Amino acid sequence: MIKVAVDAMGGDYAPTEMVAGAVAAVNANKEIRILLVGQESVVSEELSRHTYPNDQIQVVNATEIIETGESPVHAIRKKKDSSIVVGMNLVKQKEADAFVSAGSSGAILVGGQVIVGRIKGVERPPLAPLIPTEKGVSLLIDCGANVDARPSHLVQFARMGSLYMEHVMGIKNPRVAIVNIGAEEEKGNALVKETFPLLKECEDLNFTGSIEAREIPHGGADVIVCEAFVGNVILKLYEGVGATLISKVKSGMMGSLRSKIGALLVKPALKETLKSFDASQYGGAPLLGLNGLVVKTHGNSKAVEVKNSILQCVTFKEQGINDKIRESLKSKNEGTPSGHTTMPIKNGQE
Amino acid sequence: MIKVAVDAMGGDYAPTEMVAGAVAAVNANKEIRILLVGQESVVSEELSRHTYPNDQIQVVNATEIIETGESPVHAIRKKKDSSIVVGMNLVKQKEADAFVSAGSSGAILVGGQVIVGRIKGVERPPLAPLIPTEKGVSLLIDCGANVDARPSHLVQFARMGSLYMEHVMGIKNPRVAIVNIGAEEEKGNALVKETFPLLKECEDLNFTGSIEAREIPHGGADVIVCEAFVGNVILKLYEGVGATLISKVKSGMMGSLRSKIGALLVKPALKETLKSFDASQYGGAPLLGLNGLVVKTHGNSKAVEVKNSILQCVTFKEQGINDKIRESLKSKNEGTPSGHTTMPIKNGQE
Repeated sequence: MIKVAVDAMGGDYAPTEMVAGAVAAVNANKEIRILLVGQESVVSEELSRHTYPNDQIQVVNATEIIETGESPVHAIRKKKDSSIVVGMNLVKQKEADAFVSAGSSGAILVGGQVIVGRIKGVERPPLAPLIPTEKGVSLLIDCGANVDARPSHLVQFARMGSLYMEHVMGIKNPRVAIVNIGAEEEKGNALVKETFPLLKECEDLNFTGSIEAREIPHGGADVIVCEAFVGNVILKLYEGVGATLISKVKSGMMGSLRSKIGALLVKPALKETLKSFDASQYGGAPLLGLNGLVVKTHGNSKAVEVKNSILQCVTFKEQGINDKIRESLKSKNEGTPSGHTTMPIKNGQE
Repeated sequence: MIKVAVDAMGGDYAPTEMVAGAVAAVNANKEIRILLVGQESVVSEELSRHTYPNDQIQVVNATEIIETGESPVHAIRKKKDSSIVVGMNLVKQKEADAFVSAGSSGAILVGGQVIVGRIKGVERPPLAPLIPTEKGVSLLIDCGANVDARPSHLVQFARMGSLYMEHVMGIKNPRVAIVNIGAEEEKGNALVKETFPLLKECEDLNFTGSIEAREIPHGGADVIVCEAFVGNVILKLYEGVGATLISKVKSGMMGSLRSKIGALLVKPALKETLKSFDASQYGGAPLLGLNGLVVKTHGNSKAVEVKNSILQCVTFKEQGINDKIRESLKSKNEGTPSGHTTMPIKNGQE
């Protein structure tokens, strides 16, 4: 049995889609218990529209909401009764195994570190979304708040990402690569040049070297290691170029009567194709390295993505990923050159 | 009259497409003289297949070729009779106004600095490709070799890019933005946080603040300022996602008889649409801030891109961009906080 706290109030389509996603998840899997966190009256009213096994969903009241525009650090500190803080405290107190939210990324990243706390030995917890490729999906690690990371952080990202892809996504011996501006080892900025030899030394990783951004959509690696600024650019550009091209293709087809008729005929096939390139099919992004699991789903998540994010938590727990991370860092930390753990916000400060 | 040296030997389709592009350029514009640099017998034989005004194209012999895999610094130093070194020397000696090459990016970047040399006051010459957007094109500056740039470099990139977009591309008061991971001023890595206030102070720029990668394909800014590592990731991911999606769309349409018929009907309209998202329509990437002009075209350039790159040089010269850059840096350098000019390779070293 797994207990997942779900933020009913965060995201563009909250609470409707968040509640619908939770319902879909319990209807799909009997082993899940959901704690729906949010304003009780609002959440209960949404719930009343659905049919589901009543003992699998419970509402947990949280009167406040953290808005996207708010300063994350300030919001986490002040809004003690917000759905994010209440949900994360459930994980901290082991009343839930995981927390899923489509709310403010900043607040989720800060709350994950401050409330849930890091696994001992983890220097920085990376946010690691799955991105669609020609061959399936790849894990992009890190897209979180850890800008200006150090080489030792990137080595930990690689280890955690590799464990995730192997045990949650079922990819045997996942190929790990570092984002670079050329394939040769001597290429790159200072961070990449320092990190590259450290990754090469990791005997527990299937490190395949550098990956140029062009190769990412082709599925050139299973675990794509980068610093958060670069990761954020990759993630958002992926979405931006995809959306622009698809809208161009659609409007291009509306240009003449001939192509309009053609568009009607290709539509079903095209829809199926583009679905495979839609990030929402693959659930949310885990914030790895925490004492529990926090999953950030897209702000514009609909029920299907919420459901997939919840189901992802089941595999995560079943596979004991956090134990594996603990084990991996414990046995390797002696060998890594940097063991210090400076953090922008101290764990347990809240 | 403008004289353009063209590297006949560089690029995946050299010499055939390079020569064909040169011929197309002189047939399109009577004011261009081309110096086709390469192995004389090979180039002359290619030329003999074309019809063009003979006085507009001249072959300049260069016996060596710099390969893509070679160390750029070493190749520029040793291969004195390569098409890249000979072509750049023509610019240095004012026998040509510009040099166009589809050869080794590294060698072009190094040669530009070492042989052609920087305009006085330019700290680092940025490589600035035009990328297609929903609204037209944007200039991505820098995608070159200047990784780990400093804030003062980025301010110069913004100035040079703005002049280029205004006077070569004809965009009045171009919107200048810096690539960031959020719209708010306090977001970003150390480099962006330091650069942002400097750009805000530039009264000669229409600085519109941060741009998230998602907004780039939507045409969110005309000049997109970033450090070279990030720029390279953006450029290559742009190409990668585009190519993957287009191939997915095509194969998706071949899935059933119904969609195959539809594909035949939409094909012409779709082709036209996708053409507008094809970088090769917009010529090559100028390496700005040099005593002369160096344009790097895609390695896989066909004649049309070579031709467009050559025509781009005409506008560049007509508009006196280098004089405008000189003027802009002269009048502003007093005001910028950092005036030092450390360089990876010293100008004039060769």
